[in-house]
Amino acid sequence: MTRLFNDPDDFLDELTEGFVAASGRWVRAVPGGVVRSTRSPEPTVAIVIGGGSGHYPAFAGLVGPGLAHGAAMGNLFASPSTQRAYSVAKEADQGRGVLFSYGNYAGDVLNFDAAQDQLKAEGIDCRTVLVTDDIWSAPPDEFEKRRGIAGDLTVFKVAGAAAEEGASLDEVERLARHTNDRTRSFGVAFDGCTLPGKSEPLFTVPQGRMAVGLGIHGEPGIDETDVPTADELAELFVSRLLQEVPEGVEVSGARVVPILNGLGSVKYEELFVVYRSVDRLLRAAGVEVVDPEVGEFCTSFDMAGCSLTLLWLGNEPGGELERLWTAPADTPAFRRGSVSEREHVDSSATAAAQKTIPPASDESRHAATYIADLLARMAEAIDAQADELGRMDSVAGDGDHGIGMQRGSRAGARAARSAADAGAGAGTTLAEAGDAWSDQGGGTSGVIWGRILQTLGKTLGDEAPVNAAVVAAAVGEARDVVMGFGKAKVGDKTMVDAIVPFADDLSASVEAGRPLRVAWPQAAAVAEQAAQQTADMAAKLGRARSHGDKSIGTPDPGAVSFALICTTVAGELPPADGAG
Amino acid sequence: MTRLFNDPDDFLDELTEGFVAASGRWVRAVPGGVVRSTRSPEPTVAIVIGGGSGHYPAFAGLVGPGLAHGAAMGNLFASPSTQRAYSVAKEADQGRGVLFSYGNYAGDVLNFDAAQDQLKAEGIDCRTVLVTDDIWSAPPDEFEKRRGIAGDLTVFKVAGAAAEEGASLDEVERLARHTNDRTRSFGVAFDGCTLPGKSEPLFTVPQGRMAVGLGIHGEPGIDETDVPTADELAELFVSRLLQEVPEGVEVSGARVVPILNGLGSVKYEELFVVYRSVDRLLRAAGVEVVDPEVGEFCTSFDMAGCSLTLLWLGNEPGGELERLWTAPADTPAFRRGSVSEREHVDSSATAAAQKTIPPASDESRHAATYIADLLARMAEAIDAQADELGRMDSVAGDGDHGIGMQRGSRAGARAARSAADAGAGAGTTLAEAGDAWSDQGGGTSGVIWGRILQTLGKTLGDEAPVNAAVVAAAVGEARDVVMGFGKAKVGDKTMVDAIVPFADDLSASVEAGRPLRVAWPQAAAVAEQAAQQTADMAAKLGRARSHGDKSIGTPDPGAVSFALICTTVAGELPPADGAG
Repeated sequence: MTRLFNDPDDFLDELTEGFVAASGRWVRAVPGGVVRSTRSPEPTVAIVIGGGSGHYPAFAGLVGPGLAHGAAMGNLFASPSTQRAYSVAKEADQGRGVLFSYGNYAGDVLNFDAAQDQLKAEGIDCRTVLVTDDIWSAPPDEFEKRRGIAGDLTVFKVAGAAAEEGASLDEVERLARHTNDRTRSFGVAFDGCTLPGKSEPLFTVPQGRMAVGLGIHGEPGIDETDVPTADELAELFVSRLLQEVPEGVEVSGARVVPILNGLGSVKYEELFVVYRSVDRLLRAAGVEVVDPEVGEFCTSFDMAGCSLTLLWLGNEPGGELERLWTAPADTPAFRRGSVSEREHVDSSATAAAQKTIPPASDESRHAATYIADLLARMAEAIDAQADELGRMDSVAGDGDHGIGMQRGSRAGARAARSAADAGAGAGTTLAEAGDAWSDQGGGTSGVIWGRILQTLGKTLGDEAPVNAAVVAAAVGEARDVVMGFGKAKVGDKTMVDAIVPFADDLSASVEAGRPLRVAWPQAAAVAEQAAQQTADMAAKLGRARSHGDKSIGTPDPGAVSFALICTTVAGELPPADGAG
Repeated sequence: MTRLFNDPDDFLDELTEGFVAASGRWVRAVPGGVVRSTRSPEPTVAIVIGGGSGHYPAFAGLVGPGLAHGAAMGNLFASPSTQRAYSVAKEADQGRGVLFSYGNYAGDVLNFDAAQDQLKAEGIDCRTVLVTDDIWSAPPDEFEKRRGIAGDLTVFKVAGAAAEEGASLDEVERLARHTNDRTRSFGVAFDGCTLPGKSEPLFTVPQGRMAVGLGIHGEPGIDETDVPTADELAELFVSRLLQEVPEGVEVSGARVVPILNGLGSVKYEELFVVYRSVDRLLRAAGVEVVDPEVGEFCTSFDMAGCSLTLLWLGNEPGGELERLWTAPADTPAFRRGSVSEREHVDSSATAAAQKTIPPASDESRHAATYIADLLARMAEAIDAQADELGRMDSVAGDGDHGIGMQRGSRAGARAARSAADAGAGAGTTLAEAGDAWSDQGGGTSGVIWGRILQTLGKTLGDEAPVNAAVVAAAVGEARDVVMGFGKAKVGDKTMVDAIVPFADDLSASVEAGRPLRVAWPQAAAVAEQAAQQTADMAAKLGRARSHGDKSIGTPDPGAVSFALICTTVAGELPPADGAG
C-alpha cells in the first residue's frame, strides 16, 4: 500500500516537484509535466509521451537525450488532461513536429487526440503512435484495441533514438509503429496496490493465486491459477509469447530483446530467478537474445506482479531496430552507453499566465455565485459516492472513475468559487471550472466533464440573464459535444445513455413552458432511470465475472455519475427561475 | 512477500545465473560471485564488495567500470563464506592490491577478514573499509560499531572512482574511509519481507505504525510511531541527520549528496513526494544539494521502508569527494556520465577444480559413513527448529541464524554423504562437510560451523581409528579454534557458553575412562543447560523490548543450536565406541 503522502489531492503536484528537484540534470518542469533540461545540438522531432502517474519510471523517468523530449503527467492512474498534453508538446516542439506515443487507454486517447487537434490547428505537425503490446487485452485480429503496458519502453526508445539521429517525423512515426508491431507483452499479478489516501486496494488476488493477463490498473485478467514456481512462470510467459510471433520474423535465429518488468513489489532477485529460465527457454527455441533488461520499467505503485515483453528485432544482426534499441540514452531512469555532453537550458519555471476576468452583467455575476455553490454541492455528492463509482468502474474498466470524478469536481468547485469571488460572470465561471475539472480529474471523465462545463459556459456567456430556455439550450449543446466527442451511441452503456434522454426531456419540458424547478427534476429522474440500467449491468457483470463468464459487454459508470450530478442539482434549484 | 522461486535452496545459484545472463555487458560469473566482464585499460586497485543476497542492486548490481570490480555473493541475508570472498578477490585482483568494502555485520567481518588473511598469506596486499552509516545502530562515540545500510553506495562509488583514476591502494583506502566518515543514514520501516519459501515475514510492524531506525534485516529499531505524512518523515530524517554533521564540515554552505533509498515496496512516486520536502529542508538549512539520488539502491526484498543518506562532500565546490562521486560509472544498476568503451574478456566459466579423494583406512571409511548419517540427523533436527532459532535471533540479531543453520547443515550433510560414498575417510568427509556448510550457510554460524567440522576432520584424519580419546581431543581443538576466532568469552551469551563446558566435561569424562556413549550425552546435558540460559535471556529480552527496556544485553542463539546438535548426536551414538 501507499503510505507516504500529504494531502492526497496534492500528490501529483508534490511528486512532480520532488522528481524535478531530484532530476534537474535531465528534466525541467513545465505546465502539465516535464521536458528535457538539455538542448539537442540540432533541432529534432519531439517525442512526447505520457499517461497517468503511479507507473514510474513510465513516463517522466524516460525523458532525456536519446529517449523522450517531454512527458505529460496525469494524476494517479488518470490520463493527463488535454491542456497538459498540449502544453508539454508546445514546450518540447523544436519546429520539426511532434510524435505523441503512449499506452492505448480511452482517457489518454481522448486527451492526446484533442491536444493533437490543437497543435495541428496551430500549424505544428503532430502524429500519434499508440502502444498496444498487451496480448491478453484483445485477440490478435484486434491488435489495435490492445492496451499498452511495459512494451511502452521499446516504442519510446526506438522513436527517441530515431529522432536523435535526425530522422523526419514521417520516419520517426514509421519506426515507432514498426516497433509497436514487433512488441508483445504478457503480465501476471499476485496483488493490487492501494492508492494514496485510500484504505482498500484497487483489486485483490486471493492468497496463493495468480491473475493471468491482468492489466496494470487492475483491469480484469483472463484467468486465475495457483502461484507457479519461477520456472513455470517463465515457461508460461515464453510459450505463450512464442505463439504470437510478428509477421515477417522467423523464430529460429530471430534476434529478440526480452524485458522482464517488475510492477512494484516483485523484486529484483525474484526477477533474476525467473529471467534465468526465460533466457534458457528463448535460447532453446533458437532465439538470439539481444541486450535484455530486467528491472522496473513500468510499475503500478507496489502492485505485486511482473510481465515479460519481447521486442522482435528481426532475423539479421545489426538491423535498424537493433541499432536504435542499443543507441545511447541518458534519462533519470534509463541510461545506456555514452551520450555526448549537452548544454543545459535555463530551468526557471515558465511564468504562469496572469488571468484576466472579462466584464460581466450583475445578473450573470449573481448566477455565477449560485453556480459556484452548485459545484460545491456536486463535489460533496461525488465525494460520498466516489468509492462506489470506483468499484463499479473496476468491474470492467481501470477503476479510476471514482477518484477522477472526485478530484475533478473538487478542482472545478474551487475554480468556480475563485472565479465567482473575483467577479466573473456565469460563462467565465463555468469555463474556469471546466478547465480545472479536466486538468485535475484527468481520464475520460475529466475530459468529458471539462467539455460539458466549457460548453455550458460558452452558451450562457457573461452578460445574458440565465433562464430556463438558455439552460435547456446549453444542455443541448453539451449533449451534442459529448456525442461528437466520445463517438458512443445510446445503448452503449456510457454517459450518452443518460445525457441524451436528460437533454431531450429537459428541452421538451421547457418548450412546453414548465419552469426549470419542475423540468429539471423530471429530466433528472429520466437520467437516473437510464443510469440504473448501467448500474444493474455492472452488478450483473461483477457476479458473472466471478463465475467465469466473460461474454457480457462493458458498462461505464459515466451514466451513473451523470445522473447523480443531475439529481444533486435538482435538489438545489431556487424557488424561482432566476439561475441555472 | 517473495513469491517467485523454485527450490528455495537453489535461490542464490539461480538468481546469480539469471543476473549474469541479463547483465553480461558488465559482469561474468566466478566461483563465489561476479567480477567485471570488461578489462580496464591499465591495471588498478580492485574494489571487492559483497554481502548477503536480497539487497539488489547491492551488491552485484554495482560491479562495472567506475565502481566495483567484484562482488562476493552470500546466500539470502547471509554473509558470503570465506571461500567466496577469497575467490572473488583472487579473480578481481590485477596486481595492485584489493580493497574489501562492505556493511559492518559480524558474519561478513568474520568471513572477509579470513579471506583477507588468506590473500595476504599469498602476498596480495588487501585492506578493508567497513561501512558504518546507520546512525541508529550505535551512538556517535561508537561510530565503528554501527552497521552499514544504503550508505554503502557512497563508499563503493568513491573507492571505485579513485581506483579508476589509478590511485594506489593506500590512497583508495584513505578515500573510502574518509567517505564512510562523511556518510550518515537513517531508515524507517512499515513492514517486513518474507524470504523465499518462508510463510512468515521476518518481522512485522503493526498496521498504521512505523519502526524508526530498524535495520535492513529486521534488526530492532529504537522507536515506533504512527505512520507520519511525507512531510513529517522528511522533517524527521533531515532534522536528525543535521544533528550529526561530520567533523570538519560547516552546515551552512556544505555541499551534500542526499540519497533517498526505497527498500522494496515504498515506491518511486512516494519517494519523490518525500524528496520534495527533503530538498526544501536541506536548502532551508543552508545546504547546497549536489547530484541527489532517489530510487532503490539497497533493498531488502519487498520490505516496506526507506532511508535517507547524506554524504557530506565538504564546504568547497569541486572537492575531491565531489569529483569522485560525480565521476562516470557504468554498472547493471548504477550508471552516470560517459564511460569509455571497454574490451570484453572471455566470459566462459572458470572450470571447476576436479576433486580427488585421498586414500583412507577401512576403519576411517566406516566412521565416515557413520559421520554422514549423523550429519543427516543433525540437518533434520535443525530443520525442525529453524523457525524458532530465527525468531530467537531476530530479538537481538538479524534473524538469519535459523535459515543459515538450515542451509549450512543441509549442505554439510549432502557433502558428507557424497564424500563418504566416494570412499573418503572421516577426516576428508568432515572437511568437505565443513567447506559446504560454510559456503552455503553463510553468516557467522556458517563460518564457525565450517571451522568446527574442518578442525574435527583435521584431528581425526583419514587413517587412525576413531575412538573416545580422539573425539574428545578433536572437540577440544574445535573449542580452541572457536574461541580464538570469534573472540567471545564464556558469559557473553554466544556459542562459547556452550562449547567450552561441553568440551571440558567431555574431555574429563573420557580421561576418567568413561565410554563415549556415556560421556557424550552427559556433556550434551551440560551444553543444554548453558544454552537454556541464552534462550531464557532471549525470551526475557523479547518481553522487555515490547515494554521499551533496551538495557539488556545481546543473546546469540549459537549456544542453543550447538546444544541441539550435541543432543542429536547423543541420541545416535552406537552401543560400542567404534565411531565418532
